Amino acid sequence: MKWLNEEDIENIAIGAAVLGTGGGGDPYIGKMMALSAIKKYGPVQVITVDELMDEQWVLPASGMGSPSVLVEKIPSFEQLAAPLKAFEKVSGKKTDVVMPIEIGGVNSLIPVAVAAMNRIPILDGDAMGRAFPEAQMVTFHLDGLKPEFVTIADEQGNTVTIEPADGYWSEKLARNVTISMGGSSIVCDYGITGKQAKKSVIPGTLSLARQIGALLKEQRTAAVHPIVQMLDILGGYKLFKGKAMHIERGIQGGFTRGEAHFEGIDENANQSCTLFFQNEHLLAKVDGKPIAMAPDLIAVLDEETGMPITTEGLKYGARAVIVAFPAHEKWRTPIGIETAGPRYFKYPYDYIPLETLVKEHSSK
Amino acid sequence: MKWLNEEDIENIAIGAAVLGTGGGGDPYIGKMMALSAIKKYGPVQVITVDELMDEQWVLPASGMGSPSVLVEKIPSFEQLAAPLKAFEKVSGKKTDVVMPIEIGGVNSLIPVAVAAMNRIPILDGDAMGRAFPEAQMVTFHLDGLKPEFVTIADEQGNTVTIEPADGYWSEKLARNVTISMGGSSIVCDYGITGKQAKKSVIPGTLSLARQIGALLKEQRTAAVHPIVQMLDILGGYKLFKGKAMHIERGIQGGFTRGEAHFEGIDENANQSCTLFFQNEHLLAKVDGKPIAMAPDLIAVLDEETGMPITTEGLKYGARAVIVAFPAHEKWRTPIGIETAGPRYFKYPYDYIPLETLVKEHSSK
Repeated sequence: MKWLNEEDIENIAIGAAVLGTGGGGDPYIGKMMALSAIKKYGPVQVITVDELMDEQWVLPASGMGSPSVLVEKIPSFEQLAAPLKAFEKVSGKKTDVVMPIEIGGVNSLIPVAVAAMNRIPILDGDAMGRAFPEAQMVTFHLDGLKPEFVTIADEQGNTVTIEPADGYWSEKLARNVTISMGGSSIVCDYGITGKQAKKSVIPGTLSLARQIGALLKEQRTAAVHPIVQMLDILGGYKLFKGKAMHIERGIQGGFTRGEAHFEGIDENANQSCTLFFQNEHLLAKVDGKPIAMAPDLIAVLDEETGMPITTEGLKYGARAVIVAFPAHEKWRTPIGIETAGPRYFKYPYDYIPLETLVKEHSSK
Repeated sequence: MKWLNEEDIENIAIGAAVLGTGGGGDPYIGKMMALSAIKKYGPVQVITVDELMDEQWVLPASGMGSPSVLVEKIPSFEQLAAPLKAFEKVSGKKTDVVMPIEIGGVNSLIPVAVAAMNRIPILDGDAMGRAFPEAQMVTFHLDGLKPEFVTIADEQGNTVTIEPADGYWSEKLARNVTISMGGSSIVCDYGITGKQAKKSVIPGTLSLARQIGALLKEQRTAAVHPIVQMLDILGGYKLFKGKAMHIERGIQGGFTRGEAHFEGIDENANQSCTLFFQNEHLLAKVDGKPIAMAPDLIAVLDEETGMPITTEGLKYGARAVIVAFPAHEKWRTPIGIETAGPRYFKYPYDYIPLETLVKEHSSK
C-alpha cells in the first residue's frame, strides 16, 4: 500500500469500523468522502511512521460530534479544508503529512480526503489505535503533550480556533463549539513533528484496518472463518453470539449515548449481553458481569456477513457476534487507564484486562 | 477630558450605569479594573471620533456573559490582555485605539483597562450608544459589516478565536464558548478602520457618560434636580416612581434574565410598573401597558441618591425613579428595530417610540 486505491479505501472503511469499536459513524460515508476527494484532487500516498523525517509537520484531521448527526450533514470540501487552513495560519506551520487522530469509521477516511485535497501523504498510524469519544483520549495526552491549537469548521462557514489550557479544556470547548454548530464538525488538533510522531503515534493502524477489512470481505470463500483469522491477528476473543433486542440510543452532550441488549443464541442460549456506548462501545457485560471494558476494544459483527455493525447501524433483531481485543499497551498504563478506563466514563469498575475477564468468565 | 483621571472614571462608571439600561454589572468593578490598570501601566488618553485618522485600526474590547457571574470572577490582567493579542495575531493588524463596544457598566471601563495595558488611547464613542445583550446588536451590524474575528479569553488560560459566518453566528458561538468558560469572558470583536469608525460609531458617548455621572453626583447640592437636568440632556422622561417588590432573576442561556415589579408611590400611587430584562432592561409596562421598549433606553435610579441601580443591584424595597430616553436614531430605522426591537426579544409588540408611548399614556 503505497498509493491508496479504491479497494484499499473500502477495506479501511470496513476494518476501521471494527477497530472503531462501534463508533465513528457509517464507514461508507467516510469511503465516499475519501473517494470523491481523490477523484477531484488526485491519489493519496501512504507514509509509514518510520519514513517520517524528524522535522516534518504532521497534522491530524477528524470529524467531531455525534456520528448520528454527521451522517445527516455530510461535510463539503470547503468545510474539510477549513480546519487545516486555520491551523496552518495560527501555527505558522505548513502541513507535510495528514494523519488520522483515531481509527474508527469516518475518522479513518476524513484525513484521506484532507490529504488528497492538500496533495500530501497520509500517515499509516493514529493516536488511539482504536476510536475513543473524547478529544484528550490520545497517545499525545498520555505522553504529556497538550494541544497547542484546535481548529474547528462547520458547513455554515464558521471557523473556530481554540488555544486550550490543556487537553480537558480542548475537549470541553471544542465539544460545545461543535454542539453550537449543530452537532458535528471537522477538526484539526495536536499538530506534531515527525520526531514526536515516532514517539507517540501507534504505527501501522491504517494498514491493520485495511488488512482486517480485506479479511472480512473474504467471509464466504475463506477456508478458515475470517472472524477467527481476525481474532488471531488482533489477539482477540469472541465474547457472545446473540440477537439485538432493546436498544436505547440518544444524542446527549454532543455524543450518541446508549445501551444495546442482546439475547444469546446457539452457544450463548439463555444468556444475555449488554453493551454500553458513548459513540464507541465502552463496556460489555454478560449476564450482568463485565466481560470487556475500555480502553480494550469491543466490536459487533453481523453473524452472517461478518461485517462490523456501528452503534448507529444496530437494529432490533440483528444477529451478531460480539468480539473484543486488547488495547495497545500505551492504554494499559496507569495514565492510560485514568484517561480512558471505566471509571473515567463513570462505570463503577476498576479496569481489568480483557484476557483476565475472559479467563474468569470461562472458568465459571 | 484628554487624559482620564480618577474622577472621570468614577463619573463614567455612574453615567454608564444609566446609559447601560440596568445591564453591564456593578459599575464599581469596572472602575476598580480601570484604576488598577492605570496605576500599573500608566494613564489613558481619550481620542474623539473626529481625531481618528482614516487608516488607524480601532478594536473594541468588552466583557461577555452574565454580569452576575462576572462580578464573581473578576478578570486578571492576563485575561484582559489575551483577546487583543489574539485578535492582532489572527488579523495581522496592530491596534492603534481601543473602543468600548457598548456604554454600560463594566463594559465602559474594561476597554479603559485594555487601553492602559497597551499604552494606546481609548475612543470617545461606542457601537450601541447604550448597552444591549447580544453581540450583533451593534451599529457595525446595522451598517452591513460582519465581525471578521471574535477573540475570547477566560481566567483559566483558554483563548478562542471565531471567524463567524455572520453577526448572528458570532453571538451564538461566542455566547456558548463563554458559557463553557463558566459564564463570563473577555472579548474583542469587530475591528474597524478609523474611516469606518467615523461612519458607524456613535460619537461622544464616553463623555456623555462622564457628564451624566458628574451631574448625578451633585444630587444634594444642585439648584435644579440633577435627574431633571439629566432628562433634559438626554431628551428623556420620568416614567414611574415606585418601590421594588417582587424580583425574578436567573441565569439562562448565558444571560441574567428576569422581571422586576414596582408598586407606585407618590404621584404613581395605586399604579404598578414591571421591567423585563435580559442583562439590560428591554421593556417597561405601567399598569400592564408598554411605556418604553428597546431599542429605547430604560434606567432605574435610586429615589434618594439619584444613583443608577443595575438589574443585579435591584433589591426588594428599593425606592426608585424609572426613567427612559430615546435610542440613537441609528436604532430607530427598520434594520435597527429588526435587530434590537421588542419582537426580536419575543415581546408581542411592534416598536413604538418612547415619545409616542409617553404622550399616549399621559393623555389617558
